[in-house]
Amino acid sequence: MKLDLLIKNVDIITMDDRNMVIHDGFLGISDGRISYLSQKPPENAAFKKELDGKGMLAMPGLVNTHTHSAMTLMRNYADDIALESWLFDNIFPVEAKLTDKDVYWGTMLGIAEMLRSGVTAFADMYMFMDEVARAVTETGIKANLCKSPVQFFEDGELKRLDKSQGTVDYYNQYHNSAQGRIKVFVEIHSTYMFNERTLANAASLAKQLNTGVHIHLLETTAEVESSKRDYGMTSVEICKKTGVLDVPVLAAHCVHLTDSDLEILKEKGVSVAHNPASNLKLGSGIARIPEMLERGINVCLGTDGAASNNNLNMFEEMNLAALVHKGTAMDPQLMKAATVLKMGTANGAKAIGFEDTGVLAEGMKADIILIDTDKPHFYPKNNPLSTVVYSAQASDVDTVIVDGNILMQNRQFTGIDEEKIKYEVQALSGRLLSR
Amino acid sequence: MKLDLLIKNVDIITMDDRNMVIHDGFLGISDGRISYLSQKPPENAAFKKELDGKGMLAMPGLVNTHTHSAMTLMRNYADDIALESWLFDNIFPVEAKLTDKDVYWGTMLGIAEMLRSGVTAFADMYMFMDEVARAVTETGIKANLCKSPVQFFEDGELKRLDKSQGTVDYYNQYHNSAQGRIKVFVEIHSTYMFNERTLANAASLAKQLNTGVHIHLLETTAEVESSKRDYGMTSVEICKKTGVLDVPVLAAHCVHLTDSDLEILKEKGVSVAHNPASNLKLGSGIARIPEMLERGINVCLGTDGAASNNNLNMFEEMNLAALVHKGTAMDPQLMKAATVLKMGTANGAKAIGFEDTGVLAEGMKADIILIDTDKPHFYPKNNPLSTVVYSAQASDVDTVIVDGNILMQNRQFTGIDEEKIKYEVQALSGRLLSR
Repeated sequence: MKLDLLIKNVDIITMDDRNMVIHDGFLGISDGRISYLSQKPPENAAFKKELDGKGMLAMPGLVNTHTHSAMTLMRNYADDIALESWLFDNIFPVEAKLTDKDVYWGTMLGIAEMLRSGVTAFADMYMFMDEVARAVTETGIKANLCKSPVQFFEDGELKRLDKSQGTVDYYNQYHNSAQGRIKVFVEIHSTYMFNERTLANAASLAKQLNTGVHIHLLETTAEVESSKRDYGMTSVEICKKTGVLDVPVLAAHCVHLTDSDLEILKEKGVSVAHNPASNLKLGSGIARIPEMLERGINVCLGTDGAASNNNLNMFEEMNLAALVHKGTAMDPQLMKAATVLKMGTANGAKAIGFEDTGVLAEGMKADIILIDTDKPHFYPKNNPLSTVVYSAQASDVDTVIVDGNILMQNRQFTGIDEEKIKYEVQALSGRLLSR
Repeated sequence: MKLDLLIKNVDIITMDDRNMVIHDGFLGISDGRISYLSQKPPENAAFKKELDGKGMLAMPGLVNTHTHSAMTLMRNYADDIALESWLFDNIFPVEAKLTDKDVYWGTMLGIAEMLRSGVTAFADMYMFMDEVARAVTETGIKANLCKSPVQFFEDGELKRLDKSQGTVDYYNQYHNSAQGRIKVFVEIHSTYMFNERTLANAASLAKQLNTGVHIHLLETTAEVESSKRDYGMTSVEICKKTGVLDVPVLAAHCVHLTDSDLEILKEKGVSVAHNPASNLKLGSGIARIPEMLERGINVCLGTDGAASNNNLNMFEEMNLAALVHKGTAMDPQLMKAATVLKMGTANGAKAIGFEDTGVLAEGMKADIILIDTDKPHFYPKNNPLSTVVYSAQASDVDTVIVDGNILMQNRQFTGIDEEKIKYEVQALSGRLLSR
């Protein structure tokens, strides 16, 4: 057996259908995929590189299914204020100043932070998306990117003009680029920024491109009201009516759903990106996640942007997802560790179009993280799934591997110039954040 | 000016009444207290040791006001199960096996974990409390310890016998011991483990010793019911009736309070230890914290034991406290960063009897932590209070100082043998956790 990389003596959380954990096992990687996984060492193996996983937990890389990476630029800039003021008085004025260069460095910062916290793939929705694709391509991480076919403003007026060609071009240029590490969806910002015509057009475009849609859906009660007013139905219903739900849909938030909305999401196979930190921090409310899971809806996790979080830490999101719903329902048996881990890995991978990752099994892409558990907060060693969800911190991630490539080892990046990223972001923040 | 230690070029979160932050300032320490604090360097200063705080945030050490440190021994051992089964089928059987040695090593582990996450003082309620005092004395941390005057079982029967002399002896031996780093309260486990007579006796004892009481109060709806049944009133009301609230009270949880209970807590100056992670994880519910704060009740934070958390990470508690109440009340202006930081520091110090710490100001004890913010998740640098509550991880704590003594620097302990603690805990866990 010829291997590019062998990880030995490691406890392996596979996240397979049985939530199998292998103690003190071996993981072999060839051509970017997992080619060996066993409790026993491989026989007659030749390997180019070896990692000792003693004292480590190996698990699938985390998948952050909803973020706006470059909003790291507005981190800790506007907190503890009403949503309208947060958005209109603070965030929008900064975003109006953003250049392509700003978005590039903000995205690089977000990617550095995500890799450090064990994220191997993310879904991004923002502006200057060529810069986001560039950052993904350069860093080695995976991403689902999207581009809107609608231009909202022309001559300062809300016009909702179809600019489908830009989305087609973006799809053609980037979908499956970077050795397959980029997938492209069609962006539908939301039902309140689109209208019935543009929703239908975006749905057609996604169908024509044979891809999916990334949408903000029912994040706030304000959207509940606006949808009723503008469409005479819920946002889920207008999406169904316009064909949006006939393609793969990644729907962020889904905080305020009716029972009927839940049924539609289930029937249409929509994936829900749950963003507990952002929903709590902005006072948006608490999504009906346990009910979604009970119905079999594919629920995954996201951080949202750092301006409403204020980090891109998926360990915090897993911990929150596990705790908050137990507490509000007063039921400690809800949201078990295995369920939450699946939301953070396999469910997320499926939702953003990377079906061949999110589980450690032979044949899957080698998107793997190693967690260093030789620290007081991991002793004594017990249930590994509980350990990750309830005890771990993002900083416990020691090693990050994407498609078999080691992007971080012993908490050191192998190819990313983190000092330069921090310097550039700090340098440009003066101009952006002056009030 | 003669200083034992000078910390220079550091951003200082004072947590004084104005929430003053000093950028690029200087902190001087003499005889265990803060003797200099300014934006300018001290003139003609002689100092024995100097720390460069460049890129660091200095703030008061965190105060964990409710934990059972040695329950680290049951970390990740029993999760996602109903409260009754968690307690009776899992925790109690392990606790029945505990020896004094187990509690010593479990507490040492807890202290190592707490120091690493910036905790400089904690309040503990458990068994073998001499061992807890020993661990506190050896490690250099501060603690409020308590001992129950009630022995619950004799010949296997629930008897609630007063053993006040043991509490008096414990108080006399340890209160203000370890150079004043230990305070002793009287333990009242709860109104359901005590009865009217033993509640009154414990209150008298606290009065006689001129000290306070540490109690679990209204953690669950089960206590609401049992109190109604046993006393014909709420737990808060029976505490008031029996004189418990006439001494300083540290009341853990307080999840299920009536409006009248809230008024009584306010009137009697009770301090409430909010334990959001544990309350959520065990499905106990969500305490009415914003209403308590509005009434001026002294609310502080705790982790509870690691068996229901599953760590002793006060950064997580601050983050949860800031997020959860915003989300449930759908109001992003609740629980602002400054409020939550005060809960984690000054309010906690006051609640557990260390009035001369929790704020960085001249004359206060030098209980200080330095947070290393030269990491991607802290860029760009903005509001320091938001930074700590919303972006930081426990692992960002670089340096911990208690009474002017450096217990950890550059994440290395100066006097604690962490390897031995991990080894001993792992070794004894086999016997304890075999089912």
